[in-house]
Amino acid sequence: MLFKVEMTVNIPYGMPANEIEEIKSREKAYSQQLQRDGKWRHIWRIAGLYANVSIFDVDDAEELHQILMALPLYPFMDIRIEALCRHPSSIHSNDR
Amino acid sequence: MLFKVEMTVNIPYGMPANEIEEIKSREKAYSQQLQRDGKWRHIWRIAGLYANVSIFDVDDAEELHQILMALPLYPFMDIRIEALCRHPSSIHSNDR
Amino acid sequence: MLFKVEMTVNIPYGMPANEIEEIKSREKAYSQQLQRDGKWRHIWRIAGLYANVSIFDVDDAEELHQILMALPLYPFMDIRIEALCRHPSSIHSNDR
Amino acid sequence: MLFKVEMTVNIPYGMPANEIEEIKSREKAYSQQLQRDGKWRHIWRIAGLYANVSIFDVDDAEELHQILMALPLYPFMDIRIEALCRHPSSIHSNDR
Amino acid sequence: MLFKVEMTVNIPYGMPANEIEEIKSREKAYSQQLQRDGKWRHIWRIAGLYANVSIFDVDDAEELHQILMALPLYPFMDIRIEALCRHPSSIHSNDR
Amino acid sequence: MLFKVEMTVNIPYGMPANEIEEIKSREKAYSQQLQRDGKWRHIWRIAGLYANVSIFDVDDAEELHQILMALPLYPFMDIRIEALCRHPSSIHSNDR
Amino acid sequence: MLFKVEMTVNIPYGMPANEIEEIKSREKAYSQQLQRDGKWRHIWRIAGLYANVSIFDVDDAEELHQILMALPLYPFMDIRIEALCRHPSSIHSNDR
Amino acid sequence: MLFKVEMTVNIPYGMPANEIEEIKSREKAYSQQLQRDGKWRHIWRIAGLYANVSIFDVDDAEELHQILMALPLYPFMDIRIEALCRHPSSIHSNDR
Amino acid sequence: MLFKVEMTVNIPYGMPANEIEEIKSREKAYSQQLQRDGKWRHIWRIAGLYANVSIFDVDDAEELHQILMALPLYPFMDIRIEALCRHPSSIHSNDR
Amino acid sequence: MLFKVEMTVNIPYGMPANEIEEIKSREKAYSQQLQRDGKWRHIWRIAGLYANVSIFDVDDAEELHQILMALPLYPFMDIRIEALCRHPSSIHSNDR
Repeated sequence: MLFKVEMTVNIPYGMPANEIEEIKSREKAYSQQLQRDGKWRHIWRIAGLYANVSIFDVDDAEELHQILMALPLYPFMDIRIEALCRHPSSIHSNDR
Repeated sequence: MLFKVEMTVNIPYGMPANEIEEIKSREKAYSQQLQRDGKWRHIWRIAGLYANVSIFDVDDAEELHQILMALPLYPFMDIRIEALCRHPSSIHSNDR
Repeated sequence: MLFKVEMTVNIPYGMPANEIEEIKSREKAYSQQLQRDGKWRHIWRIAGLYANVSIFDVDDAEELHQILMALPLYPFMDIRIEALCRHPSSIHSNDR
Repeated sequence: MLFKVEMTVNIPYGMPANEIEEIKSREKAYSQQLQRDGKWRHIWRIAGLYANVSIFDVDDAEELHQILMALPLYPFMDIRIEALCRHPSSIHSNDR
Repeated sequence: MLFKVEMTVNIPYGMPANEIEEIKSREKAYSQQLQRDGKWRHIWRIAGLYANVSIFDVDDAEELHQILMALPLYPFMDIRIEALCRHPSSIHSNDR
Repeated sequence: MLFKVEMTVNIPYGMPANEIEEIKSREKAYSQQLQRDGKWRHIWRIAGLYANVSIFDVDDAEELHQILMALPLYPFMDIRIEALCRHPSSIHSNDR
Repeated sequence: MLFKVEMTVNIPYGMPANEIEEIKSREKAYSQQLQRDGKWRHIWRIAGLYANVSIFDVDDAEELHQILMALPLYPFMDIRIEALCRHPSSIHSNDR
Repeated sequence: MLFKVEMTVNIPYGMPANEIEEIKSREKAYSQQLQRDGKWRHIWRIAGLYANVSIFDVDDAEELHQILMALPLYPFMDIRIEALCRHPSSIHSNDR
Repeated sequence: MLFKVEMTVNIPYGMPANEIEEIKSREKAYSQQLQRDGKWRHIWRIAGLYANVSIFDVDDAEELHQILMALPLYPFMDIRIEALCRHPSSIHSNDR
Repeated sequence: MLFKVEMTVNIPYGMPANEIEEIKSREKAYSQQLQRDGKWRHIWRIAGLYANVSIFDVDDAEELHQILMALPLYPFMDIRIEALCRHPSSIHSNDR
């Protein structure tokens, strides 16, 4: 099942630089593992913003929730979610 | 170049049913041609809404503009657009 | 899979009364059949508004979409949707 | 009497982890006691968010107020409330 | 039980003047009957707007809903509702 | 002259508990004195929120301003104000 | 007593031109009479918009309400109102 | 040239009282000098809020900008600006 | 003096096609004359929208107002305006 | 390719003055280099605000992203971006 997730990151002023780098590093590794697993199908940067548009391919909302709550940057994210389904005009039977 | 486009359709009350069907039919054909051309990379239905999330792969903003203005349903759409670029955490060199 | 759906109905001014009644009658029958099928688990009126809060229990987003698009009042509704999952503090293993 | 309550939790940056855990632990115990008492009828997680949708079944607005103000996480919550009543299309005489 | 209700009236352009007057006349009679019954405790005009702030004193949300849905001007109103309870700083034990 | 005032209180995280209590205590005494003086005609709690709906009966906007600016909790309040006048459907000649 | 009133005019599409002109003509005469009476102290056009910022000097909210409701363009206006009082930094004892 | 400027002041929690007083004192002196110079034509308090509505009479946008950026309270202000011009219904040829 | 103006066009459903074309044609001629006069310095299409971002170089707010009110498409436009001035980081002494 | 970028700066309360000055100094140098390179075509101050409207002329969204993320003030900016293209009414074949 597909979900579009938009994440915007807001790092609090005064957070130590090495702490930020350590979290970002864990975030990247975590994201890439999920991409390799086929759960995080797409991730695009929104131009000019510390934000992304992502497509997740998960079993259900529960799995999506567990994945997002484990994001190292989650406490600093504003997140918007929409469930997707196949569009009747799509030329693909299963566009993921 | 990639753009995320979200389209929400609002058909005016009182529009004749056959006129609606004719426009929708042209919209579908137009969308599918652009998908076959590789310009309209993804189109997903937002669950429960007469709306979609799409990814366009165009030469530039001008081409995106010409494509969208020619949508048969354009006069009845609310449209939101964001330019995308590669995300540094993506495992793909060119995720389209 | 559970979704919370909030529906607000806006009948256009000038719509003939018998047409409204006919649509509402079909809406009620349709809703009650889905309730009997276990798909539309809860429906509550929001006090003072021509609006409801509903809980749907469907296979996936696709089924939710098909159910909502077939609502006789759909063209006159403003709809907001959120995917739900089990809350870790719930005393029920499967609260539907 | 039924109320739909939506709670979104925002933990301030810099709050000590053990203080957070202690509050969450009290929140869970408090919520579960109210669920066993039949006051907090439903609680669902909104997928991907540190937020829930809940249905309360209370004597009146006063009781709802006392319950919510005593939530251990209340100072960190954004709360939205709507009073509910039976929907005329419900197949249940008293859906709680 | 008390509810604050704010009603803003929007008469559609083109509605016949005598039809408007007839509805307003019924609205006034209906409101005044409810005031005499003690259900509609207060009604104030918001200065400069075709809008009011009202306090209703009803048995429960169901009664509030029935009262509001029967307002002759209801189809032309934008309505916002909040449940009230006694304020701990009030010098009245039961301010209605 | 009547004004509806809605006050929502936001206590900053980290404010010492005894400081909060001292301010709340002064707020309550101040509010009750104004109620006894007939200036603060009504105060209701909005159910579930740290917020109130109040009706002030003052000589003019200047007096309202002086009263509100002297609220001990004023620095922590979000305030919305609307001037009221008699509603033509009111059965009272002077509902305060 | 002073009120700032902001009025934005929205003429419905399809309203006959002579009807519009007749209403605007009455609006202008009405506004100028109130200006000569000292009730409508200031009226400025917001540059580029069919909108104005006005300062009214009235006995109370009731008088403001009667003045605004009698505006010939009132049915086509979006109106925002704020009560004003003397600013402690003003060099005028009574700036109207 | 006239501009309407609305300023809302938000003092950060924890700012030392003497620092606040010193800034307010400078703000008042600065505002009064500009009023005497005829640049700051009107300043009114918005009743109940730590906010004002002001009318500036400046040579151009550049002068307005320099004046506002030099406000001692500027770092704590939320500011909204609209350019004004003569209203065709004004009875004054030059209402400042 | 410079102003940034953003215009979004909304053509009412049902407006005759030849009437639309005639207005658009007059709009284009009017815009181009103002561009040649140096009043309308820049006009860019916002990609994908029936909207533009423009920079006007006018004597004052009054001239801007007269120019905008005379736009043939004005009745169908949503307009947002901001006054501009030289940026201290600009490498141009007068960037128009 | 052109983008309109609007940047609003919010300096956190308590940030040391010399740190602010150092960042602003770097911001200015960085902006001026990009202007000399022809990438940052226009920068205007929004009158009265610590904000600017800018036009960027870049190869693609990726280049825009890299430029904006390197702004020394980026962590304190609220940024809004829109892709632009040639307007059919422009008298210039390539207005940059």
